[in-house]
Amino acid sequence: MKTPKINSIGKHWHLELYGCDVKKIEKTEFVQASLREAAHQSGATIVNENFHQFSPFGVSGVVVIEESHFTIHTWPEYGYAAVDFFTCGEGININKAVEVLKGKFETEEIEITYFDRGDLQKAKSKMKTPLSK
Amino acid sequence: MKTPKINSIGKHWHLELYGCDVKKIEKTEFVQASLREAAHQSGATIVNENFHQFSPFGVSGVVVIEESHFTIHTWPEYGYAAVDFFTCGEGININKAVEVLKGKFETEEIEITYFDRGDLQKAKSKMKTPLSK
Repeated sequence: MKTPKINSIGKHWHLELYGCDVKKIEKTEFVQASLREAAHQSGATIVNENFHQFSPFGVSGVVVIEESHFTIHTWPEYGYAAVDFFTCGEGININKAVEVLKGKFETEEIEITYFDRGDLQKAKSKMKTPLSK
Repeated sequence: MKTPKINSIGKHWHLELYGCDVKKIEKTEFVQASLREAAHQSGATIVNENFHQFSPFGVSGVVVIEESHFTIHTWPEYGYAAVDFFTCGEGININKAVEVLKGKFETEEIEITYFDRGDLQKAKSKMKTPLSK
C-alpha cells in the first residue's frame, strides 16, 4: 500500500471487495458486526455506529471512530462491497482491518487505493482567521 | 467535474475545503445543520445522522442517506474540512451540495475529485454464488 505523506491531514483508503459471499453481505447484523470487528482489530476507538438495511437486501453503514470513520455499502446482487477507511491518527492498523473484512465476507479479490486528504501546508497558507483558543 | 462511468456501481466525490471560517467548523451544531442542508438541497433522502464533537474543537460526522452517505471531518486549527459524498442514485445534485457547504463555511477554495466505485462488469464476473431472491 502507498505510504501516507508527512504533510497530509487525513488518510483515506478505498476498498473494492469483489466476489464476496452474497449471504454474508445481505443483512445488517453480520455486516455491522464485521465492520465493528475490523475497527476493533485495527486499534480504532468506536464513537458510534449507524447501519441501514435496504429491502430486499443490501446494507449501508458507518462506524464513527475517534480517528475519523469506517463506512460500508454492499450490493449482494453483484457480490460487491465498497468500504472506506478514513483516519487521522497514527496508530490505526489498516492491514488488520482489511484482513478481517476479507475473511468475514469470504472475499475473492480486494482492490485498495490510498489517498492523502488535505495538504497541511496549503491549509495553513489559506487560513483567514487565527483560532482564538 | 469528471462524469461517472456507465458501469460504475457507486459514485464518490472527495472535497477538500480550504480557508474555511474557523468559527463555522468548530462545533457540531452548525456543521451538522450544514451537512444536513447540503444533503437536503442535493435531493438525497436522509436515513440517519451521527456527529461527534472533539475537544476543544473539531467535528466528525456522517449523514447516511438512502443513496449512500455524506461525511465530514473538520480541523478548525487549519481552517480545513474533508467532505465525502458517496451515492448510488441518479438523482443527486452534487453541485447543489457543494454550493451549500461552500457558502455555509465561507470556504475560500474547494478541490473536488471524483472516483468511480466498483466496476459492474468485474463484479459480475467475480460472483461466486447466485443471489436466491
